[in-house]
Amino acid sequence: MTAKMASSLLKVAVTGLSRCARHSVPSMRALSLTVPVTVSKGVPQSLWKLGRLNHVAIAVPDLEKATALYRDVLGAQVSATVPLPEHGVYTVFVELGNTKLELLHPLGEKSPIAGFLQKNKAGGMHHICIEVDDINAAIVDLKEKKIRLLSPEPRIGAHGKPVMFLHPKDCDGVLVEIEQA
Amino acid sequence: MTAKMASSLLKVAVTGLSRCARHSVPSMRALSLTVPVTVSKGVPQSLWKLGRLNHVAIAVPDLEKATALYRDVLGAQVSATVPLPEHGVYTVFVELGNTKLELLHPLGEKSPIAGFLQKNKAGGMHHICIEVDDINAAIVDLKEKKIRLLSPEPRIGAHGKPVMFLHPKDCDGVLVEIEQA
Repeated sequence: MTAKMASSLLKVAVTGLSRCARHSVPSMRALSLTVPVTVSKGVPQSLWKLGRLNHVAIAVPDLEKATALYRDVLGAQVSATVPLPEHGVYTVFVELGNTKLELLHPLGEKSPIAGFLQKNKAGGMHHICIEVDDINAAIVDLKEKKIRLLSPEPRIGAHGKPVMFLHPKDCDGVLVEIEQA
Repeated sequence: MTAKMASSLLKVAVTGLSRCARHSVPSMRALSLTVPVTVSKGVPQSLWKLGRLNHVAIAVPDLEKATALYRDVLGAQVSATVPLPEHGVYTVFVELGNTKLELLHPLGEKSPIAGFLQKNKAGGMHHICIEVDDINAAIVDLKEKKIRLLSPEPRIGAHGKPVMFLHPKDCDGVLVEIEQA
């Protein structure tokens, strides 16, 4: 219930006010983020939880061909191509039952995956996205734990929910996205 | 029921007889693999189905550090380190609820991930593994569809089930493993 309420509040806070998101969260919540709860023996209890794997993102040089592989060769259910100009990508969602793959292809000149495809001409796994129950709490906690983040505040991701990317150098060479569940 | 039976037969066939696996499958099954069923309008109906994402494998240069990231920083449930000498890796399983990550570190001099870590010193995503309901049918079908496979017959994978790797050049630069569900 609390997590749901916080999630709704967070959506309101982040949409259109992303730079001020943290300040828009009600003060009790903001306070709770900075005061770790301690349980017996002084072990700090985390205020946020990691959830399910939302998706694996795969950058591809040829979206038609990649879609055909998953749809026609592997027999998966795939979406139509979804242009996401605000994220600089075209996306095709590949349903796998428990999670999904997201095929990404550059859209526009400033696409964030253009550089990746320059280095990986055949395509490749670009990032994994794991859900969290409270992205603001996670961000505060990860900063304290010296994990570098790729933007100062969460942004609204491809699914309309707040997301944050963690630096691959702090995650075993893997670009990890966390997304509000 | 048929899939279960086939799966059991397959296990028997592949264990200890991997080179002859296909011939060990009962003749009706073997026949069905080579004769695609056609439904109305002549569309061939696949004899196998893609299932859920079993895991994402991440090759890491420092297994202790990577385990600590997922356990202590991200709060995931992680397994103890499992040495798999027959696969040339140490593995740590990271549970994400709907699927898992598998952290891989080289074991022995002929580890299949040593070359990957030479090229990707910080580590990185190594492969994805998707389940199939009938790996023998899938292999026959994928060969017909000109997808190159990395071994002539399925091998027994890290979970004790038959697996096959598909060539990354035929899968948008991604090493894809299929595993008998």
